Formats: sequence, C-alpha cells, structure tokens
Amino acid sequence: MDRNAPVGIFDSGVGGLTVAREIIRQIPEERIVYFGDTARLPYGSKSKDTVIRYSRQIIRFLRTMDVKAIVVACNTASAYALDVIQAESDIPVIGVINAGARTAIHATRNGRIGIIGTEGTVNSGIYTEVMRQLKPDIEVFGKSCPLFVPLVEEGLLHDSVTDEIASRYLSVLKGKYIDTLVLGCTHYPLLRSTIRRLMGEAVTLVNPAYETALELRELLKSRDMNRQEQMPFEGEKYQFFVSDLAEKFTDFATAILPGEVKETKQISVEDY
Amino acid sequence: MDRNAPVGIFDSGVGGLTVAREIIRQIPEERIVYFGDTARLPYGSKSKDTVIRYSRQIIRFLRTMDVKAIVVACNTASAYALDVIQAESDIPVIGVINAGARTAIHATRNGRIGIIGTEGTVNSGIYTEVMRQLKPDIEVFGKSCPLFVPLVEEGLLHDSVTDEIASRYLSVLKGKYIDTLVLGCTHYPLLRSTIRRLMGEAVTLVNPAYETALELRELLKSRDMNRQEQMPFEGEKYQFFVSDLAEKFTDFATAILPGEVKETKQISVEDY
Repeated sequence: MDRNAPVGIFDSGVGGLTVAREIIRQIPEERIVYFGDTARLPYGSKSKDTVIRYSRQIIRFLRTMDVKAIVVACNTASAYALDVIQAESDIPVIGVINAGARTAIHATRNGRIGIIGTEGTVNSGIYTEVMRQLKPDIEVFGKSCPLFVPLVEEGLLHDSVTDEIASRYLSVLKGKYIDTLVLGCTHYPLLRSTIRRLMGEAVTLVNPAYETALELRELLKSRDMNRQEQMPFEGEKYQFFVSDLAEKFTDFATAILPGEVKETKQISVEDY
Repeated sequence: MDRNAPVGIFDSGVGGLTVAREIIRQIPEERIVYFGDTARLPYGSKSKDTVIRYSRQIIRFLRTMDVKAIVVACNTASAYALDVIQAESDIPVIGVINAGARTAIHATRNGRIGIIGTEGTVNSGIYTEVMRQLKPDIEVFGKSCPLFVPLVEEGLLHDSVTDEIASRYLSVLKGKYIDTLVLGCTHYPLLRSTIRRLMGEAVTLVNPAYETALELRELLKSRDMNRQEQMPFEGEKYQFFVSDLAEKFTDFATAILPGEVKETKQISVEDY
C-alpha cells in the first residue's frame, strides 16, 4: 500500500465535513478524497439494508481513487454498515461510533450517558452495545432527534423554534441524570451552543469527530502508512465528490473547512 | 393498449398517496400500481438532473407492470421531469401541476395567487409559467417551505412549533394580498387546518389532487381506456411498491387510504 495515497472519507452529505475538518487539523500532511451522497441523503431514516447497499457503492467508488484507508464519517452508516464493510475490505476502515463511545466512557463520572442521533443510529442500539463492551455497568439512554438535521440545513442554528424542539427532545435525557451526552450525528455539533445551554455546564458534550481523527492518526502511524509531509503528489491535496448539487456543496465546504474549496465533482455513485 | 391494465402512480414517498386516495374516490373501477421512492426521498431539495434520472428509472419499473397511463403524483418530479418523461413515453403521462394551476386560475378573483412547495418546485418557476400561459396577467408569488415535510413526517400536524414555522413562511404571502393559495406539495394538505387558520377564510386553498384525479378520469374516458367495473383481473386491485421500508409504508398507506393495505413490496429501483 502506498503511504502517499489519500484517505477516503464519506458521509450522506455535508455533515462528515466536521470530521474532515478535524482530520485536516490533526494530520495536515494527509491527502483526502471526500464523498457526500447528496443525491440520496438523508440516511438517518432509511433501512439497514439500504444504508449497507449505498455504503458498498461508495466504497467501490473510493477504491477507484486508490485510497489507503476509509473513514465512515456518518453515524448512521457507521451504525449499520461498518461491520460489513470492514469484513469485505483489505484496507483499514474506521467509523465514528467507537471513537465517540470511548470518549464518553472516559468522560462519565456517574456512569450515565446520553446519546442523541438519527432514528437509524439510536434504534440500532450500537452505541449502547459498544459502550457496554468497554464498561459493562454503564447506563445508556438514547433519543432520536429527527428534526435537528432539517433545522440545521434550514440555517436555524440559533432560533426560538430550534430551542423549543431541542428542549422537547432533551427533556427526556435531563430526567435521566446523565452527565455525558454524545452528539451522535455529524450535524449536531452545529447546534452545540443550544444543546449546551439546555443540558447545563455539568454535562460533558462528546463530539466523536475529534477522537475519530486521533484514531486515524494512530492507525496510520502504527501501520507505517502515514504520509510524509515532503512527498510529492499530482492533483489537489483535498478532492471532493458528491452525487448531486456540486456547487452547493462547494459553498458549504468552503464555509466549514480551513481554506477555499475550489471544486466538487459530481459522479453517478449508483454505477459503482 | 389493454383498458383493463392498471394506472401507474409515483411519488418520492408517501405524499402521493393523497393523490391515489382521490383517484380511488373518483374512479373506483381503476386498478393502481403505486411506487414510492422511499430509499431516495426527499426529492424537493435535489437537482433537476437527479430528479429526472430517478423518474426515468421509476417509469421503466412501472412499464414492467404494464400500466396504461402514469400519474406523477409529486410536485417536484412534475416540475422537473414531466416534459422529458412525456416526450419519451408512448402512454399518457400526467402531473399534478397543470391541474393545480388550472384550479387556481379558476378560483382567483383578484388575480393574485400564492404557491407553496419544496425548493425544487418553487424555484423551478413552473407554476408561474403554466398559470401565465392560461392567463397572462396573473400575479404569482412563490414561497418554499422546506420544514413542512419533516414536520409532517414527525407527526407535528397540530403543534405550536408548526404554527410558528408556518406563520413565518406564510407571512410573506399574506403581505402580497393573494386570494388563492396552491398547496404545491402532496404533504401539505395534511397541514391544511394550520394553513387555513393563518391565511384566513377569504383565501381559497387549492389541493391539486382533486383536479388531477378528474383529469385522469377525463383522459381515460376520451381515449376509451377506462376500465369497466366488471372486467376480471388477477392479483390485487391496488399494488404498492417502494424502494425502502415496506412495512412502514404499509402502515402509513392504511392510515391514508380507504380499506386496509395488505402488502407493500420492496424493489431495487436503481436497477431499472
């Protein structure tokens, strides 16, 4: 495997850019190929079989770009498809859930952890399963928040309506006396200040993006697959692909990532 | 063409069932094959090219069921893809927009019409175009309401949050002194009472489903393609197909349609 090859990252849309941003910050020498499945988003309300089929197509596309490792930067795809993809793949594949679960386990003092995410992620029970493997006596309380993604995409990050909806979703978790809350969807860090205010300062908010980037760095290093700063390469260091609305994606990515995103290419992912 | 063949109806998901319900009410003798693209919904925020590609695949699937005519029961697909599909098809294809536009033109007294729908439908400008062809001096005011579909799917039909969001969306149209408002998305009739209260009794609300069913009935009759009540057939009179989450669809369809929906089959629509 070429250690100069890029890392592949995928998500149902733009949310995974919060993970890409953290990877760029922590391992700036790595090259990235990002794919956002904007023609078929959202994944959060779709079935396990469908999310697995979509993830397999994306993996086949990313392999054509000669990636050396893959980050599933989408909680729903990590919840439903990670096992399957890992079993089928001869390159390392990591998701965001193990990282988020591990951080939460380290952060909690009273052993009561909340997890918010899409219906797919929460109903899969995957966070509970992973956390219990790490610490069997942990108590995990999940709550799906289906309106958070549409509210973020409508730009209502600081709005009375978002406050009201968040207050309803989170009241269930407040009643459980959790001291740690996992933001189990890549869109949710954009609602961090609202969630922070409603949950109070005593509750630690866990954003899996940070630890996912750390896990990737350790993994590449341990396998001698990390790229050296001075290695020459052809083309762009960061490449972006989507299945729909490339221009809109470019604007969003430029707003989230450090530096301007020059171009996003559109591909027919269902052909892979 | 076999006049005993079913009519094909499609939508991005469950919304088109409000059109199917009206067809069942007005032409109960007709057989129906319904397809909901639940693996790729929503269509309203996706590009024209993508919606056309998806619509073509669905048409190819419906043709394998030997349908005699097709109803595009989705405003976004009607806005973006109807022309293309009609040009490629040797069976009649009708959408929901002509019917909605015609009804609105007949209903208005002051010549000022509002249209609410998805970003795709409203930004396409198709309602304005069709209405101006029918009546050139009409004034049309569009407003996209991206949160309406998620709010309906979350079940918040009668809720203070829905009131607040609807009030923001509709205030723009109230300022335009419209006397007629087209519900240009098949989900919106489910918010009818909220919209009615906010717009006031003086504004006529137009639901294109009614006139679409009427148009279909006239079309089949004029071409001698209407089914005769007593014609025998094999299998179910109403058949339902989706690309994901068949059981959830069955529950929703049973709630909307008269009579129980026994079964929904899942197909891989991208293979067509």
